[in-house]
Amino acid sequence: MPHIDLPEGVPGIRGPMLFRPETAEPLNHLANVLLRGDNTLTRGERELIAARVSRLNDCKYCCDSHSTFAAHQLDGGMETVDCVVDDPDSAPVSPKMKALLVIAGQVQQGGKAVTTEAVEAARAEGATDTEIHDTVLIAATFCMFNRYVDGLATWTPEDRAEHWERGKVIVEHGYGNALK
Amino acid sequence: MPHIDLPEGVPGIRGPMLFRPETAEPLNHLANVLLRGDNTLTRGERELIAARVSRLNDCKYCCDSHSTFAAHQLDGGMETVDCVVDDPDSAPVSPKMKALLVIAGQVQQGGKAVTTEAVEAARAEGATDTEIHDTVLIAATFCMFNRYVDGLATWTPEDRAEHWERGKVIVEHGYGNALK
Repeated sequence: MPHIDLPEGVPGIRGPMLFRPETAEPLNHLANVLLRGDNTLTRGERELIAARVSRLNDCKYCCDSHSTFAAHQLDGGMETVDCVVDDPDSAPVSPKMKALLVIAGQVQQGGKAVTTEAVEAARAEGATDTEIHDTVLIAATFCMFNRYVDGLATWTPEDRAEHWERGKVIVEHGYGNALK
Repeated sequence: MPHIDLPEGVPGIRGPMLFRPETAEPLNHLANVLLRGDNTLTRGERELIAARVSRLNDCKYCCDSHSTFAAHQLDGGMETVDCVVDDPDSAPVSPKMKALLVIAGQVQQGGKAVTTEAVEAARAEGATDTEIHDTVLIAATFCMFNRYVDGLATWTPEDRAEHWERGKVIVEHGYGNALK
């Protein structure tokens, strides 16, 4: 049961977003810019970072939903996503993505855990300053979203297939619009 | 030295915000709603939560700056702020604030660390659902900001007095405006 009185039957972050639309607006805006705005990282790649960090934070709602959003937007679909989320090192993604996922994992541990070596390794694989910046901020943002969702003890569907249809709406229309 | 090429001589979060204005906008919007919007918690009380979480995350830039913003907006000034940041249990703040600071500390550890007991204790001291929601989201948000600032290895002034004058601008005009 959620720690506060949230709209019934609304899973995950959607409950607190309906409860407090004033904060939902900038949160959805941030998610749209980071995960869907113009970028040299694809939308699928950015969702992978979100899903991986959510797994590291043990947030099932965010991991299942963003894994789904990634699968909708990656050639390899859910099979590739599961590999990345479980073990990025051996996953079928580019060396640059692997290096960025190392940085994301360090951010999950704490800001000071990010090493110069990890940043240099990403740069050696072709990562730009903006890609490194966005990786750090996506990872940091999911350290927020994960805590928001679980810190209020929101309801999480057991079966991740429940995210599939809503994922299509988000892929087409963006974050926030799926709430309306 | 920062991990990416940020504007020189600009401390803390202000560097990456100048580097990437597209994400700075929703981040400042979120900070303004959470820390300055209409609320039954005072602006000073909300800045205390931000400063305490930043201390727990060992983020000197955010702890020093938000301690300063809290001090500008609390009767007890920096003396009270330092007590809260160092040891909220023995600080001269209301029982409700102490209970909310316990929740904030749990959020810093992780979303699942928030206990029903801590939420019930806050409610017993008069905390509303919105106050509990906002405490969780402020704490989660600073788990993001702290990782953003330190994950990019931004520059932090040694002397926290350097935040004092800018703090007055933020108190008067809000977040984001101090950047312009």
